Amino acid sequence: MADEKEKLTIVMFNGDLDHALAGFTLATTAASMGMEVSMFFTYWGLNIIKKNEGKIRSKGLMKKMLNFMNRGGSKRLKLSHFNMFGLGTWMMKKLMKEVNYPSLDEMITMAQEMGVKLVPCSTTCGIMGISDDDAFREQIGSLAGAAFFLNEARQSKVTLFI
Amino acid sequence: MADEKEKLTIVMFNGDLDHALAGFTLATTAASMGMEVSMFFTYWGLNIIKKNEGKIRSKGLMKKMLNFMNRGGSKRLKLSHFNMFGLGTWMMKKLMKEVNYPSLDEMITMAQEMGVKLVPCSTTCGIMGISDDDAFREQIGSLAGAAFFLNEARQSKVTLFI
Amino acid sequence: MADEKEKLTIVMFNGDLDHALAGFTLATTAASMGMEVSMFFTYWGLNIIKKNEGKIRSKGLMKKMLNFMNRGGSKRLKLSHFNMFGLGTWMMKKLMKEVNYPSLDEMITMAQEMGVKLVPCSTTCGIMGISDDDAFREQIGSLAGAAFFLNEARQSKVTLFI
Repeated sequence: MADEKEKLTIVMFNGDLDHALAGFTLATTAASMGMEVSMFFTYWGLNIIKKNEGKIRSKGLMKKMLNFMNRGGSKRLKLSHFNMFGLGTWMMKKLMKEVNYPSLDEMITMAQEMGVKLVPCSTTCGIMGISDDDAFREQIGSLAGAAFFLNEARQSKVTLFI
Repeated sequence: MADEKEKLTIVMFNGDLDHALAGFTLATTAASMGMEVSMFFTYWGLNIIKKNEGKIRSKGLMKKMLNFMNRGGSKRLKLSHFNMFGLGTWMMKKLMKEVNYPSLDEMITMAQEMGVKLVPCSTTCGIMGISDDDAFREQIGSLAGAAFFLNEARQSKVTLFI
Repeated sequence: MADEKEKLTIVMFNGDLDHALAGFTLATTAASMGMEVSMFFTYWGLNIIKKNEGKIRSKGLMKKMLNFMNRGGSKRLKLSHFNMFGLGTWMMKKLMKEVNYPSLDEMITMAQEMGVKLVPCSTTCGIMGISDDDAFREQIGSLAGAAFFLNEARQSKVTLFI
């Protein structure tokens, strides 16, 4: 690996607002520092890049239930702690606005504009029945598996599991 | 480190079904790609490699309580989200079967057959009173501490804390 | 990066007793092995290095509420699992004492004496209104942002997100 590029690879496993904000703050900062950034979304992390509108079509009762309860979309995420039936999450968003911090939704768009690669995990999608092309926001990369992630990771200076 | 081997080291800190599946999917995929893989189990992560049968013998009321409530075994793990008194976990397992995805138990056996090293953390075992040799599945490596893990990690291309 | 030092960088994102103990066990072990260690505290992780005495002064009702409920201090942290209204956390501390394992508070002091750098995240502090200089324990480094962390991380052999 003679001319290894400075690269950051992140697995987004958790789908809470706080994990998402931490991930995208690191991703956009790294991109602005000239690093190449890949984010790989698996398990609950898939919720972060689901569409805010519409719903996911899937076949079978269990998949329908799972995808209904686990609907996702950057605007629906909650804090992993201190959600307090929505109050904590609402306060957090309010405080972010007060200091002019971008919303998660704006950060995702910003990351995409900066060239950060957003890749959904094919295995989780397969198990949860998210076969639908329009489950995710626009300009999301094609589904890929663990081998793809590991290949990215072993070319990276820094790899994080969030 | 002139001829550094391509190595993956994982700390398994969480003991939920989803974390365990993510860890073993990465471990087995990396092994199939020719990487050397070590997994270091600490705190709740120890539950993943505990035996499914029998119980852990430990001395003292508190240790007995802790080990009873925290019984572990790959077949007893629950999802970290959407467990819903067992319903979510049951649905997840069912959906995995539908697409012929191996169960966690099968994946652990597979990882062992592929040469993935599974190492329990000696410090956690010491504190929780898991002194018993037969607490863990067969062919688990000897207990080792943080220094062991750090040595593995600094020879690794990729290190993850799951 | 011709003479890259053996360095460990840790993001402390979670603020539970178990995550804190895992982080500081790794940090002090790495320092004793001659590694250079930086710990970067963000989100709930900030609670770990907050003062045990006194309270955080902040302006505005929401910030006051958030900082009251999220008071922190190494002696107030709880386990992420099996807290059981404090019983599990109390048992854990008791068991640690039985095997003469240092308390979290002692480990943080020890880490500082060994030269481990403890750095609070400026962005989280800004959003949560922790502007107060005396929110944190003594000898904590100045606030720094994601760019600081990424710079440390890309010079590190091992980087963990805990």
